[in-house]
Amino acid sequence: MASDRRRLTPEERREQLLDLGVRLLAERSLEEISIDVLAAEAGVSRGLLYHYFGDKSAFREAVVRRAAADLVEQTAPPSVGDPVERLRHSVTAYVDFVDANWAGYRSLLRGAASDPALKAVYDEAFGQLGERVFSADTGLIPDTPAARLVVRGWQAMTEQLVLAWKSGESEVSRGQLLDLLVDALPALAVTLPAE
Amino acid sequence: MASDRRRLTPEERREQLLDLGVRLLAERSLEEISIDVLAAEAGVSRGLLYHYFGDKSAFREAVVRRAAADLVEQTAPPSVGDPVERLRHSVTAYVDFVDANWAGYRSLLRGAASDPALKAVYDEAFGQLGERVFSADTGLIPDTPAARLVVRGWQAMTEQLVLAWKSGESEVSRGQLLDLLVDALPALAVTLPAE
Repeated sequence: MASDRRRLTPEERREQLLDLGVRLLAERSLEEISIDVLAAEAGVSRGLLYHYFGDKSAFREAVVRRAAADLVEQTAPPSVGDPVERLRHSVTAYVDFVDANWAGYRSLLRGAASDPALKAVYDEAFGQLGERVFSADTGLIPDTPAARLVVRGWQAMTEQLVLAWKSGESEVSRGQLLDLLVDALPALAVTLPAE
Repeated sequence: MASDRRRLTPEERREQLLDLGVRLLAERSLEEISIDVLAAEAGVSRGLLYHYFGDKSAFREAVVRRAAADLVEQTAPPSVGDPVERLRHSVTAYVDFVDANWAGYRSLLRGAASDPALKAVYDEAFGQLGERVFSADTGLIPDTPAARLVVRGWQAMTEQLVLAWKSGESEVSRGQLLDLLVDALPALAVTLPAE
């Protein structure tokens, strides 16, 4: 371990620590991930973590920013193929991500409601996920102000449905959930005025 | 004024003070509505307000509970008529309520994310608004677990769209917003599996 560590540059070491922070988010809320916890898990001193990340809130923000980037990356659709199948690929990856990172995901939603730095990370990821529907140019929905509003609504619907499914408040299966989410976007597109 | 006040029972007086609290929510966030502010606005002593409401957080919860009850009452659809027009009536009343109580509405969404008592009030109102879609028996959507999940999603979509519209983040007009929201529910119902 010690010899491995010495071969890493400071930047690589920081990235490695961030990755560990993100992995901890799978089982723990943001509030439960402190410099102390990460130091214990990584087997490094608290002083080193402060050196890498500054203060406690900067550390949390860095972990959340990395987790959000992972979400955006993991939900990228294939660049070719049937538009609805590409959408299904993204939606499935999104549901799987929330499923695998449940504690951290819920705590981010809570945190974003009160912490401006976390809200900025959330909004940026929300915007990137929404933008993808248009930049992928799948033809599922036109690019108009009304359509952009509808996509935001579909994203909020997706968040709500995944939360309800994952918390056991609904009896639908994972397959039914995916069908509902994938079918919803083209169905909503049909309601848009022709421009 | 003083002679009017003497004719009210304690219960009526409490209701009157609650109404004033709710009216203050139109322009102020929950955080800005304190016992002090209400005492000044109502021209009564802080001691009297503590007598009626207990502590500060109980007072805030009572105001939010009343505001939520007002929202549910004001968005009740006509009991007869064309199903889509009845839906439009409710959605229009919802948008108008948020428009008229913007500061308080936003602060409730923020507060519900971190305060369990406020979350309980929010969840109850959210549940009542969703239940109405089924109890009104409009035939717009069947009553199945999947449909109930879709209605929750439609409510989250509605919340998101009204927030985006009201905060000026979207270029759509109030009329376009209402059309999008009213058209969305029957469009989503079409995607539900036959049962």
